[in-house]
Amino acid sequence: MVRMGSIAVVLLMAATQLAFAGEDLASWRDGPVKQSIIDFVERVTAEGSADYVPPAERIATFDNDGTLWAEKPFYFQLAFALDRVKALAPKHPEWKEKEPFASLLKGDLKTALSGGEHAVAAIIMASHAGMTSEEFEQIASDWIATAKHPKSGRLYTEMIYQPMLELLNYLRSNGFKTFIVSGGGIEFMRPWTEKVYGIPPEQVVGSSIKTKFELRDGKPVLVRLSEINFIDDKAGKPVGIQMHIGRRPIASFGNSDGDLQMLQWTTSGSGARFGLIVHHTDGEREWAYDKDSHVGKLEEALSEAANKGWTVVDMKKDWDVIFPK
Amino acid sequence: MVRMGSIAVVLLMAATQLAFAGEDLASWRDGPVKQSIIDFVERVTAEGSADYVPPAERIATFDNDGTLWAEKPFYFQLAFALDRVKALAPKHPEWKEKEPFASLLKGDLKTALSGGEHAVAAIIMASHAGMTSEEFEQIASDWIATAKHPKSGRLYTEMIYQPMLELLNYLRSNGFKTFIVSGGGIEFMRPWTEKVYGIPPEQVVGSSIKTKFELRDGKPVLVRLSEINFIDDKAGKPVGIQMHIGRRPIASFGNSDGDLQMLQWTTSGSGARFGLIVHHTDGEREWAYDKDSHVGKLEEALSEAANKGWTVVDMKKDWDVIFPK
Repeated sequence: MVRMGSIAVVLLMAATQLAFAGEDLASWRDGPVKQSIIDFVERVTAEGSADYVPPAERIATFDNDGTLWAEKPFYFQLAFALDRVKALAPKHPEWKEKEPFASLLKGDLKTALSGGEHAVAAIIMASHAGMTSEEFEQIASDWIATAKHPKSGRLYTEMIYQPMLELLNYLRSNGFKTFIVSGGGIEFMRPWTEKVYGIPPEQVVGSSIKTKFELRDGKPVLVRLSEINFIDDKAGKPVGIQMHIGRRPIASFGNSDGDLQMLQWTTSGSGARFGLIVHHTDGEREWAYDKDSHVGKLEEALSEAANKGWTVVDMKKDWDVIFPK
Repeated sequence: MVRMGSIAVVLLMAATQLAFAGEDLASWRDGPVKQSIIDFVERVTAEGSADYVPPAERIATFDNDGTLWAEKPFYFQLAFALDRVKALAPKHPEWKEKEPFASLLKGDLKTALSGGEHAVAAIIMASHAGMTSEEFEQIASDWIATAKHPKSGRLYTEMIYQPMLELLNYLRSNGFKTFIVSGGGIEFMRPWTEKVYGIPPEQVVGSSIKTKFELRDGKPVLVRLSEINFIDDKAGKPVGIQMHIGRRPIASFGNSDGDLQMLQWTTSGSGARFGLIVHHTDGEREWAYDKDSHVGKLEEALSEAANKGWTVVDMKKDWDVIFPK
């Protein structure tokens, strides 16, 4: 068995090496950005080269909001939370008098969110806690299957970036293991990341609330509690990476200052390393924003990219296609 | 590329199906225990059958202490902690007067541990916290490469169970993804699990202390703090599984009451499920213990195994070999 398996693995490797990067990255326009990706992948996969990295160590981490899918006009998970609050409102008559719910139910998002972190936390807990993990998975799955983006009218899972899908596939076909490392909720993402990105639940790292194991009428359940467990953002990203992966990535992909520490952690390791920032420069096909944006603020990480030699994608210039057709 | 990859995958699957279970599980004596494993694997891998499970969902979780390696005369990680305290003692003259260190350094383990959880926590923090994640990885790697078991005189990594190694390989050759889910320290295990069990760091779930991202002279580090992050034992195991894997396992393997909730969680899912308990019955080749043992206490899970139809391995009877030769 070991022998037959090994033969198949060799065949698989051979097939993998037929990958033609230019074809794989079809939506990336030719130029230094695309070339920097190909150069890195060829360096770390060339057996015998000084930069060779064994497949087991080819870990690549991707931010989600603004890196794999869009994040405007606001984080898609917030749209989910708002829809949940509306759906749950009949069971919570007290919300009519209680902020942030009162304003939110009147459609006044601005006032609802004026309470800052406290308001957001109240909305998140009301919409994300109190049910079992399986119930939440079903709720998130049902929402993502039908909810539409307010501007494009497309499904949220169609607001993903075609060039990044190609990049994920290109890396995997070169033996990389691809992970999401997002500030978003881990259990909000897991129900759909495998289908949409080819990333299975066990390769998703994100923010979380605490859960508790219980027997209900003899049946084991995990109950989602109104208590933050982990915030996978900024300095939390390297912590989340170590906790879940236990190995430093050799390549990381982000788009905002929330990804700065992940990029620092990844690119400061020894050997060949790759850091990439998606810069949202296309106000026509997508949105153009950076340092002045509340969602996806990009300032510090952009200046550090210049100093550290990280690749910066100019969406307008470097991407032939933004969303899948 | 996609096409070539698919052909190779098909070849790989075909080769995998040539697996001959009898040969793969060579150290398992023929009988109902071995047969229950083979029956389960054949059911979930038979395409078209009602019990078929796609490879992505073939998640198997293994306890470590007492399930994959021995745990007597006490947890091996405690031996590591004691060795570290001795190595660090010259830098801590105050330990001569301070329990549990004073007794421990005099070789009086019993008095040292008489302080219970508080004493153990003090020893764990003194030996596991205060350094960076990379420094700790090196310390754990160095120790495991040389430290010897007090009774057998073998390396701790030679005190692993040969039948369980074969079982891990058998499951993987049938498309399973194998995870460790242990009460032991996640970062204590990760440096050696890939080499010893074929389980990479990202498939290890365990107990942890908190870490903090810092820039030291511009260089990013993760500092290990003297604060518990997560205890991956008993009701914590399903929580750890959900946090790390995000999918309910279809098979789980344990040996003590600390594995009860993991077994409940795994086997209460829908479709074909498998639970197995390693019962330490061989006082000659290994150790014989269950309900009266402090380490690896097995009582509740054993009676539940009978009710739930989990497989119970009688080490003396079912295993032809205990440790690798």
